[in-house]
Amino acid sequence: MLSWAQKYCRHEIVGVVTEVGSKVEKFKVGDKVGVGCMVGSCRSCESCDNDLENYCPKIILTYAAKNFDGTITYGGYSDIMVADEHFVVRIPDGLPLDAAAPLLCAGITVKFAKALGAKVTVISTSPNKKQEAIDHLGADSFLVSRDEEQIKVQAATRTMDGILDTVSANHPLQPLIGLLKPHGKLVMVGAPEKPLELPVFPLLTGRKKIGGTFFGGMKETQEMIDFAAEHNITADIEVIPIDYVNTAMERLLKADVKYRFVIDIANTLKPSL
Amino acid sequence: MLSWAQKYCRHEIVGVVTEVGSKVEKFKVGDKVGVGCMVGSCRSCESCDNDLENYCPKIILTYAAKNFDGTITYGGYSDIMVADEHFVVRIPDGLPLDAAAPLLCAGITVKFAKALGAKVTVISTSPNKKQEAIDHLGADSFLVSRDEEQIKVQAATRTMDGILDTVSANHPLQPLIGLLKPHGKLVMVGAPEKPLELPVFPLLTGRKKIGGTFFGGMKETQEMIDFAAEHNITADIEVIPIDYVNTAMERLLKADVKYRFVIDIANTLKPSL
Repeated sequence: MLSWAQKYCRHEIVGVVTEVGSKVEKFKVGDKVGVGCMVGSCRSCESCDNDLENYCPKIILTYAAKNFDGTITYGGYSDIMVADEHFVVRIPDGLPLDAAAPLLCAGITVKFAKALGAKVTVISTSPNKKQEAIDHLGADSFLVSRDEEQIKVQAATRTMDGILDTVSANHPLQPLIGLLKPHGKLVMVGAPEKPLELPVFPLLTGRKKIGGTFFGGMKETQEMIDFAAEHNITADIEVIPIDYVNTAMERLLKADVKYRFVIDIANTLKPSL
Repeated sequence: MLSWAQKYCRHEIVGVVTEVGSKVEKFKVGDKVGVGCMVGSCRSCESCDNDLENYCPKIILTYAAKNFDGTITYGGYSDIMVADEHFVVRIPDGLPLDAAAPLLCAGITVKFAKALGAKVTVISTSPNKKQEAIDHLGADSFLVSRDEEQIKVQAATRTMDGILDTVSANHPLQPLIGLLKPHGKLVMVGAPEKPLELPVFPLLTGRKKIGGTFFGGMKETQEMIDFAAEHNITADIEVIPIDYVNTAMERLLKADVKYRFVIDIANTLKPSL
């Protein structure tokens, strides 16, 4: 049986091109490239036509999905990989491969928001993340979500244009909606298993919105990577060998990593004979 | 004690101008005008600057609110009314006063949507509203929200760009979100008292949004009224005398009206001596 790590952690893949097909136009041998969450889509529906292959009903995910020819996709736990050039992004020279990998799925919200020119407040349950959020990530301010008084004071000023909600656990939306300006947006990127409680009245009286989004289309993803290179945005990572993966999973569940493990497949995976 | 009707039903007011102040520029005696949900706001905050006085933190509602001078606003149960010209809309000549009044708050969704060029599906709990929705209101199709099979078939095609949800009772959002295209919007205009259950995952996988809105700003409201006049959109009404108001309330609670009562204050309210 596959372990949790084997099943879920293989869709942010980077490497160097070793071979290209005769019709490939975007890449040549030696290029630094990446593959994210998907490796195929229909290429003809409304979503695909709008460079949003990620919402194609026939999307092929990078692992544990079926290719159009019936074969199974195996993801990134491999020393080589074959992919359609459309679903491959270019990693610009300025970006180290290992620290670019985690950009392909989760991104790093605070660094991007600052580079985009936003005033950024980090909202967290734990007050002890404050210094790191401000000193290391570059946030402008910090709010403890469990501190009702602090949230109330902040909500009275209604200063936030948008909130990116990355929490995957059950949590109250009302205080977050209260922080938003009129017409503000709360964008969910975490996926709590059970439905959350949605207070409707505050949406009406502030013409506010709640939206959701997951990984981007290929065009958006390439733009994001290029933007990261331009602004020197990289993920904070700890590079590990493949045989450390189960230990890494245990540490991940204890939140004992800052902030991403990256597996060095090329140097540590022994090809089966 | 005020009855429910006395408290809540007096904010969609139409009439004819009988007198104007010396600095009034927008109106003259004899003009047909209306007053909606608000009669004042600060005129200097970000919302007011953007013609969205309806989201001003200092908004003065049309009834049971405090004017800046400390007096109370009394709404439309009166044979005369004094209002700031900024919060008065012009009723164009083509629009009958009585059938225009209900446009000032709730509007009439299907007729507007059709006039705006949308393909309109009415979603209702009761199948017996189908004929009226299609023949009288002009909807293109009809969907019974309690018919799980019908909803499932429709959801499989994901054809809706947006849904206006006018339901004020508790109801499931999941089937509605399922009907939306990727990037579709569910806009709440009803205000259920208790929080609704919000399934987050379908928002993420379809990059969908849930928003809310209530009455418009003065500019939006004038645009809406002008649009209604241009496209001959009027509300379906039953005109009643003021002394019928409690009976009307009883009928309203039984949904026994198509679709709005309008009180003829001018001809039936006896001024107190």
